[in-house]
Amino acid sequence: MPSPRVLVVAGTHGNEINAPWLLEQWQQQPDLIQTHGCEVHPVIGNPEAYAKGCRYLDRDLNRSFQPGLLRQAGSERNPPSQVDREVQRAIDLISRYGIGGIDACGVVIDLHSTTSSMGNSLVVHGRRPADLALAALVQGRLGLPIYLHEADPDQQGFLVESWPCGLAIEVGPVPQMVRHHKILTQTRLALEAVFEACSDALAGRARYPNQLVVHRHLGSLDLPRSPSGSPDAFLHPQRQAADWQPMRGGDPLFQKADGSCVPYEGADGLVPVFINEAAYAEKAIALSLTHRECWPLSYEWTEAFQAQLSAG
Amino acid sequence: MPSPRVLVVAGTHGNEINAPWLLEQWQQQPDLIQTHGCEVHPVIGNPEAYAKGCRYLDRDLNRSFQPGLLRQAGSERNPPSQVDREVQRAIDLISRYGIGGIDACGVVIDLHSTTSSMGNSLVVHGRRPADLALAALVQGRLGLPIYLHEADPDQQGFLVESWPCGLAIEVGPVPQMVRHHKILTQTRLALEAVFEACSDALAGRARYPNQLVVHRHLGSLDLPRSPSGSPDAFLHPQRQAADWQPMRGGDPLFQKADGSCVPYEGADGLVPVFINEAAYAEKAIALSLTHRECWPLSYEWTEAFQAQLSAG
Repeated sequence: MPSPRVLVVAGTHGNEINAPWLLEQWQQQPDLIQTHGCEVHPVIGNPEAYAKGCRYLDRDLNRSFQPGLLRQAGSERNPPSQVDREVQRAIDLISRYGIGGIDACGVVIDLHSTTSSMGNSLVVHGRRPADLALAALVQGRLGLPIYLHEADPDQQGFLVESWPCGLAIEVGPVPQMVRHHKILTQTRLALEAVFEACSDALAGRARYPNQLVVHRHLGSLDLPRSPSGSPDAFLHPQRQAADWQPMRGGDPLFQKADGSCVPYEGADGLVPVFINEAAYAEKAIALSLTHRECWPLSYEWTEAFQAQLSAG
Repeated sequence: MPSPRVLVVAGTHGNEINAPWLLEQWQQQPDLIQTHGCEVHPVIGNPEAYAKGCRYLDRDLNRSFQPGLLRQAGSERNPPSQVDREVQRAIDLISRYGIGGIDACGVVIDLHSTTSSMGNSLVVHGRRPADLALAALVQGRLGLPIYLHEADPDQQGFLVESWPCGLAIEVGPVPQMVRHHKILTQTRLALEAVFEACSDALAGRARYPNQLVVHRHLGSLDLPRSPSGSPDAFLHPQRQAADWQPMRGGDPLFQKADGSCVPYEGADGLVPVFINEAAYAEKAIALSLTHRECWPLSYEWTEAFQAQLSAG
């Protein structure tokens, strides 16, 4: 039986330094992370940004895997020097590790950290059946909450979407450029659970939970802004670090410098995620809103996942 | 009686965004921060870096106030285009707000935030009597711990040293580029305590504590490194966020990826500060070591402080 081939990307954002360090240490100590028989290809997503300690050079690599963007950059009318470096990097990663590449992988795991109090969590993009099966196995094993990101025209071109199956692991809170024992441990645990899931599913011995609990993306909220466009409030003390905790209409959301409160005015029960993520300020996102849903496990998911793994 | 003239610098490091935001809000709401009668000049230390969201452009502004560096840059043989932008900014700040400047201030407060768990704290550079008097009044009022930085040949050229009297306020933990309610509140409280101290001292109504408790800088520790020079350990879970907590020989200090512990081997009772500050990685500082000392209040300090305030 062939091994599942898993691409593990760390440092897709160059200032998220825990996962890259974990992979570096792993190279020197092969028993640091149990692969459960998977053939793993570790790679630094954005090595130039990682060397500089910044999130990216020209544009966010994890928004650069847009088919239109990649096609345009690959056309002959665009000499490489005029292509954003992250778009070129996306093309290079796909051509080596994507379908038909010399090191083709059927599954990709994209490792991130966040300044938000997300804990150890999974991000699934869209509803591809194989992704949902993989997420269900990891959730069944570790209980991680899942943020299902979909249908947001402002946020497109995520790395994992360019592989047949994959998900992101998001761990926080941790400042950018800070190595932290808890983040390292949580990243390793989630990664091992992914490897075990792939291995078990390929061997037909995977034990799926009865349902998948997802937090489905509905949209994002920006900070209140003054007429000049600059933020004139901050996350309310009761909302700061309260990721995954449902809100009710009227709950405190933001606070102004004078102490006045800006309440949450959305529907009851929605669940905020990525509260006060440093890098999302430039995207005008103070938090994202999700709807918690329990989806019964589907045979279609598990079949798709096993088929994908069997395909190599 | 003239008012104490206080220069308040925020954003000396462009990615420390809480203090700049506080000053921006203050401009719109003059009663947000009580000045206690001081004439306050608020300024963004490094506006270009602040606009870009990075610590600095060419070099750390808060290491650029070295007399030799400033002299060299100011000489005719150095055209401005060849001078580091932060050195030029240091010259500009001194020429406007320093002695003899059009907006000369006798006291400077430099506002910083840190990823370390420093809480609300003061940093004093050297043992200038007026600085010690000001620090004593703020410590007496708010109980803030004081890091006394001195005699470190590797770390020179701090902003406050270019004014006759001044100190830095360091608040954490907070990630770079994240606005946080607690950091905003603590910064405001420390700032108001400084203004009150200046006002009271000038009016001769200051009530000093009997002693000043300082944590005197002894040196810094780097992370353990592999032969290739890259860090091969991280802060031990027991040491992470344990700023201001004394250590004993043999206490866990760092941890390696395989879980093994690197113990602290220094003298008993030394107190670590700036543990795991993101920006100090480039300076090869994992933490600094200090010696806690109680100094009886000195008449020389209070006289120097009052004389400085009276001089305008």
